[in-house]
Amino acid sequence: MTTPLAAKIAREYGTPAAVIDMDRVERNIARIQAACDAAGVANRPHIKTHKSPLLAQMQVKAGAKGITCQKLGEAEIMADAGIDDILISYNLIGEEKMARLGALQAKANMTVAADNSTVIAGLPQAAAASGRPLSVVVECDTGRKRAGVETPTEAVALAREIAASKGLIFAGFMLYPTETGWADAQKFFDEALAGVRAHGLDASIVSTGGTPNLKNVGKLKGATEHRPGTYIYNDRMQVAAGVASWDDCALNIYSTVVSRAGPDRGILDAGSKTLTSDTGGGLDGHGLILEHPEAKIARFAEEHGFLDLARSNTRPVVGDVVRIVPNHVCVVVNMMDEVVMVRGDEIIGILPVAARGKLR
Amino acid sequence: MTTPLAAKIAREYGTPAAVIDMDRVERNIARIQAACDAAGVANRPHIKTHKSPLLAQMQVKAGAKGITCQKLGEAEIMADAGIDDILISYNLIGEEKMARLGALQAKANMTVAADNSTVIAGLPQAAAASGRPLSVVVECDTGRKRAGVETPTEAVALAREIAASKGLIFAGFMLYPTETGWADAQKFFDEALAGVRAHGLDASIVSTGGTPNLKNVGKLKGATEHRPGTYIYNDRMQVAAGVASWDDCALNIYSTVVSRAGPDRGILDAGSKTLTSDTGGGLDGHGLILEHPEAKIARFAEEHGFLDLARSNTRPVVGDVVRIVPNHVCVVVNMMDEVVMVRGDEIIGILPVAARGKLR
Repeated sequence: MTTPLAAKIAREYGTPAAVIDMDRVERNIARIQAACDAAGVANRPHIKTHKSPLLAQMQVKAGAKGITCQKLGEAEIMADAGIDDILISYNLIGEEKMARLGALQAKANMTVAADNSTVIAGLPQAAAASGRPLSVVVECDTGRKRAGVETPTEAVALAREIAASKGLIFAGFMLYPTETGWADAQKFFDEALAGVRAHGLDASIVSTGGTPNLKNVGKLKGATEHRPGTYIYNDRMQVAAGVASWDDCALNIYSTVVSRAGPDRGILDAGSKTLTSDTGGGLDGHGLILEHPEAKIARFAEEHGFLDLARSNTRPVVGDVVRIVPNHVCVVVNMMDEVVMVRGDEIIGILPVAARGKLR
Repeated sequence: MTTPLAAKIAREYGTPAAVIDMDRVERNIARIQAACDAAGVANRPHIKTHKSPLLAQMQVKAGAKGITCQKLGEAEIMADAGIDDILISYNLIGEEKMARLGALQAKANMTVAADNSTVIAGLPQAAAASGRPLSVVVECDTGRKRAGVETPTEAVALAREIAASKGLIFAGFMLYPTETGWADAQKFFDEALAGVRAHGLDASIVSTGGTPNLKNVGKLKGATEHRPGTYIYNDRMQVAAGVASWDDCALNIYSTVVSRAGPDRGILDAGSKTLTSDTGGGLDGHGLILEHPEAKIARFAEEHGFLDLARSNTRPVVGDVVRIVPNHVCVVVNMMDEVVMVRGDEIIGILPVAARGKLR
């Protein structure tokens, strides 16, 4: 079974294609902005999901205070598009990056994160190049064991290092609590805040993160902003986390069944170079096929998706175009130069994924 | 520990970066061409690994008969660069693709694969658009359970369909035997060949595939060509398969250690958006760090590689730049717009990954 829109996409654009439903995109933007407003925290969406200046501008227009980027290259694209309040939530190191950060800070209000002294020692070079002070938040590990200092004591020590560094302003704390770890995050933050205040400093930014954490937004007393990313498109992970419904999933991969081979098998023209090998934290299969929800995308070659149809009562024929909700939409968008924008059954345009592939 | 070249890459280009050693690239090209020559089969390298017209031209200049592509978009880039003998080893379906295939066939000698009647029914449109006959090989499944007909009888039936289709030429068979399945592949092929000959047809192309299969190249009696891809760069998978040494691995990801957090932990600036979540068929960890071979890249966030240093006697400090051999180099190259070419300790240029992101 191929929907009329899927037939149109295949005929006019070709598959595999990433297709975004702009009605859903706008609804997702409005819904999460309203949730942040209701919780009394600013919204600072992470653009790593969409990597599009147009969508970032829509988020700002809807009320976002600014945006979050993970890479300098992403921030450069966004600043060129006129976004002027950008947090790079990442440890930046090295002369090449400091030169670029300085150039960015000369045209936008930049904040960067740091979780160690080596990072802090490099940042004054960027501030000096820009000719104005640079805001720095201390990244705190509140349970994910990713980056971030592991104790409030370390957080306070780094805050003092920042405040003592030429051209740097200690701006506050960046946290990324686990979905069940907000009590621990509160304890960490309260101690860190008391610690910096004891040294005459204060936190103007207290930033929490994550789309799955939208159910907790505002829960941290003292938080000033939240950094959700995936909510603009949503995916199987967000549905599994209970923060989105299937109707909130705004991006589908449209893929053609190119072979059936055995009776219980099929091959999609979307493999690991389209849907990626990301399991979405251990989901069953590599995406949900809306036309055949009992079919399993069992494994991948680079350009082949291996369909296991053993459990599926409905089976596609060669030439069918199916719609797939990806496991993890952020890494899927990163695979392509552009996505197709639709409204209802109309193709309304092609949107460049302008900040895609900005590794540095 | 940071090598002088790694320090130079970080300073002049920034990390993460994909760096290719051109001496190794040239050696790999020459070695596998010699192996195909010695086995008496033509070399038709798969460009899905490097996606670069320059490297494809080097392969052709070294003796390759033509190239293999998986996507029309890849073939378009290669034909524009003057490569004139291209196999697209994939079932192509749909009007949009037939129009593009016709345009390609008007400027290069194209061969395409088919494993079902729906694909064959569409191809005459491309042939008609180009004004000349189009060569089609029948894809045979010889054990991978990917695309391909499952029996010689089906292969013969499709060969006859191709031969009976206006503008199409039955050109032969495409196989991709498993590394241990060459005896089965021989049996399949012998039956299929006898079958088509009984109907007055013959196979001018008998194509085998795979870099791990280079140890078997020439083993199929009647084979005319082989399609290896990964050998130009190699990776952990090829070393595990016994067809490459670490010294044959021509592409490294250079990555900066941006955080150490806990004593047994570290964070690299290369995550799943650089190294991908591809496990390389179940390898331990997400790449080999040459400076710390006992360290494990245990898991990923999109822009964070989580280092587990528990088993490693040597531990990097924040700011170190390390070199990583990826699990599966083909999907890693696909993440970036360009790679850095080096010879010895010199940066000699930037090579665009011109056919990257050509999903369609």
